[in-house]
Amino acid sequence: MSKKKPFVQAVTPQSEDFSQWYLDVIKKAELMSYSPVRGCIVFRPDGYEIWENIQREMDARFKETGHRNAYFPLFIPESFFQKEKEHVEGFNPELPWVTEAGGEKLEERLAIRPTSETMIGHMFAEWINSYRDLPLLINQWANVVRWEKRTLPFLRTSEFLWQEGHTAHESEEEARQETMRMLEIYRDFVETFLAIPVIVGQKTPSEKFAGAVDTYSIEAMMKDGKAVQAGTSHYMGTNFAVAFHIQYLNRDNQHQYAYTTSWGASTRLIGSMIMVHGDDRGLVLPPKVAPTQVIMIPIGPPKAREQVLARTDELYQELKQAGIRVRVDDRDQSPGWKFNEYEMRGVPIRLELGPRDLENGVVVLVSRITGEKKTVKQENLATEIKQLLTEIHDQMYQRAKSFLDAHIYPVDTLDQYKQILKENRGFALAGWCGSAACETKVKEETGATSRNIPLSPPVNKESCLVCGETAAHTVVFGKSY
Amino acid sequence: MSKKKPFVQAVTPQSEDFSQWYLDVIKKAELMSYSPVRGCIVFRPDGYEIWENIQREMDARFKETGHRNAYFPLFIPESFFQKEKEHVEGFNPELPWVTEAGGEKLEERLAIRPTSETMIGHMFAEWINSYRDLPLLINQWANVVRWEKRTLPFLRTSEFLWQEGHTAHESEEEARQETMRMLEIYRDFVETFLAIPVIVGQKTPSEKFAGAVDTYSIEAMMKDGKAVQAGTSHYMGTNFAVAFHIQYLNRDNQHQYAYTTSWGASTRLIGSMIMVHGDDRGLVLPPKVAPTQVIMIPIGPPKAREQVLARTDELYQELKQAGIRVRVDDRDQSPGWKFNEYEMRGVPIRLELGPRDLENGVVVLVSRITGEKKTVKQENLATEIKQLLTEIHDQMYQRAKSFLDAHIYPVDTLDQYKQILKENRGFALAGWCGSAACETKVKEETGATSRNIPLSPPVNKESCLVCGETAAHTVVFGKSY
Repeated sequence: MSKKKPFVQAVTPQSEDFSQWYLDVIKKAELMSYSPVRGCIVFRPDGYEIWENIQREMDARFKETGHRNAYFPLFIPESFFQKEKEHVEGFNPELPWVTEAGGEKLEERLAIRPTSETMIGHMFAEWINSYRDLPLLINQWANVVRWEKRTLPFLRTSEFLWQEGHTAHESEEEARQETMRMLEIYRDFVETFLAIPVIVGQKTPSEKFAGAVDTYSIEAMMKDGKAVQAGTSHYMGTNFAVAFHIQYLNRDNQHQYAYTTSWGASTRLIGSMIMVHGDDRGLVLPPKVAPTQVIMIPIGPPKAREQVLARTDELYQELKQAGIRVRVDDRDQSPGWKFNEYEMRGVPIRLELGPRDLENGVVVLVSRITGEKKTVKQENLATEIKQLLTEIHDQMYQRAKSFLDAHIYPVDTLDQYKQILKENRGFALAGWCGSAACETKVKEETGATSRNIPLSPPVNKESCLVCGETAAHTVVFGKSY
Repeated sequence: MSKKKPFVQAVTPQSEDFSQWYLDVIKKAELMSYSPVRGCIVFRPDGYEIWENIQREMDARFKETGHRNAYFPLFIPESFFQKEKEHVEGFNPELPWVTEAGGEKLEERLAIRPTSETMIGHMFAEWINSYRDLPLLINQWANVVRWEKRTLPFLRTSEFLWQEGHTAHESEEEARQETMRMLEIYRDFVETFLAIPVIVGQKTPSEKFAGAVDTYSIEAMMKDGKAVQAGTSHYMGTNFAVAFHIQYLNRDNQHQYAYTTSWGASTRLIGSMIMVHGDDRGLVLPPKVAPTQVIMIPIGPPKAREQVLARTDELYQELKQAGIRVRVDDRDQSPGWKFNEYEMRGVPIRLELGPRDLENGVVVLVSRITGEKKTVKQENLATEIKQLLTEIHDQMYQRAKSFLDAHIYPVDTLDQYKQILKENRGFALAGWCGSAACETKVKEETGATSRNIPLSPPVNKESCLVCGETAAHTVVFGKSY
């Protein structure tokens, strides 16, 4: 952590300007810096460590379910994009092109990957020959680039970090199972690790991934009521198999196209986490992902300093050995200054230790989310802290869940939705006939898009909010990042 | 692991064509595939898992020594390269350029990073204001691109994966300490984790990094006697600080340039490891880095199969719980076929379990490096295996060390060196006067370059092998990948 820059200014209050609050907080908490390249950010150590914690946890879940990591080239030949029609239309406007390399003009332009669908399709065709090679369960951790017009740190940047899973299967049934299994892994990870409640559902045809048969997503609600798509899982059918000739000899010795899936989650999870949990004092980091879970702040007069520091160090070692991510701040700034600093950085627990605590064999723990102080014995400190971290996670999830539930508005008509948007932030839950025209009309008149068709909607709506015809689906609508 | 492709063909023997042996082995062991992009490979799961194991271990060592990871943009504006003269000259010929993005021609071309020196210099200038911000100890795990004319999988590819450390310090002394500390971390890692003995030394001026004051390296010897630079650590002085205005207010309240370092190691470690340890039967993977440390192969007639498999599974669970990376191959291919397959894949220990072993409560362990069979009790299997893995590591290191020591030839004259090169593979150890002319002459007449000036040369040579003048240094020369 850098030792400079006291937080002399508070951040813009969320109620005043949520976007400015977000930009203030991520800079002041030193999660990122703007880079000199348009739309690209630098992940500073605290920002990157959040991503490392996300990676470690997701990676373990992918491996437990039989996936292995691989790495594919950054560059994709232009001709590859032409092979899947929807895919090229979806990504072409966002591609950066390498046209020269090693002092020469290239014969074929190379795109920087916006996703590795096509490259992996090509390699799968080489690797898969027989049903014995299936299922093939691959994941890649990588940087990808989409040249975005409007960017927002973490949520939409030209270059971002992500994982993309790609699998191939013998049957539609198996591929569909994989699609839903990975969607469930995302849901579970985001809810139990990042404390973000989500709506699990299927994208409407107009919102699905370029080239997919069906796309599923988990959608989270930010504190300003906007949506972030926090993870997607696609069933591709044989679209990419046909485009890239992923064929195998099946159990009846017949050539057959494989059924493929893909699924991805990215560093936008960091942005969502900040917008779901943060408050006017700064970040509020979910304990499981926080780079620092406990910040220890020794306090008291100079004459007691040595004694307090000695005990602080003992307790620090103890907590560290217990697997808690703990840091000590023994610099000479005032305790008040430090309290503000670590509130800004969103550290879940502040531990204060002064001379009187020493005498009494206790420490004071302060929860970032509730601000509650709790005096606890030094004896079972690691256990106490682990319990408090669990409590904080649960409180964060519950608070976010209550917020989500309170800001989903069932509506019957478009007018009703427009009225609600004037007075509230949040999502609408509405019936939809299934026509693209009605979906477009919602977007044109409200700026909101269909987020997804929830697998388990809280209520079922009977008629389309636009045309009034019988609803084919109950849809969540919302403005989105 | 893919279930197809029996290894019907053996690989080209090393003695016949070492390069072809290497290409055969990495393909047959499924570490990589060629990609459709020139000079770029695909890391298949076994190849990538080796890199993951390297990363995990190196990353822990970096963090133990106070470094934190960050992430910087893939793109570097053209103007950045102009700021450090030697740097631009060193990298310009190898850069790929993005000239169009998002459907428009860019005003300034963007290079794909060949290293992040310049970008990180720019950001350090923003982050560092006072001596309180120092030392700043940053590492990045990333993909980089150098458009190489001749490529070789893992050892020299257009895109490769690496880590690059970048640090800034108050004083030359501290920066030089950091340079040597990281060099030592590389040496220790490569020797104790990859079982590769190395020569630690300083690069001659003509071989140092573009923009560095001093470059240090660890050099390994492949089985064909050629060198691979397995890691480098650079002391930059204030070169990059001046170029990028990395200034800080020192303890006397004066503006001062910071002293910087950088250090890197890459996926070429995978290539070295293969060329140092492999043999005519395939890969020989060091136990600490092997994706599979133990392959369990149940054997015996069909009627015993169920019983053998049941016990295999029990032992598998036991080994897995003990933290051993173990896999079972219970497919219906013959044991002989499987033995060959896992020898090709370099799995350190093969475990055979048949009906008679069941009766006797034993298993048979076969070491990949020696081929020795050992019958051990099932009771203490995990302990036995851990011990054998340690032994295998030690044997591999010793074997490679003996090879290295036996193939360093002290020479007094260039003629002597040329004669030795006719009959032997390996390095020369020779005196060097320090002039670039003499160094160039060695290269022109032998094709070998100075590898480094060893910090602890086995012998000190008195006179320059070219001009015969008093030697300023004892230098290791060798042909290199």
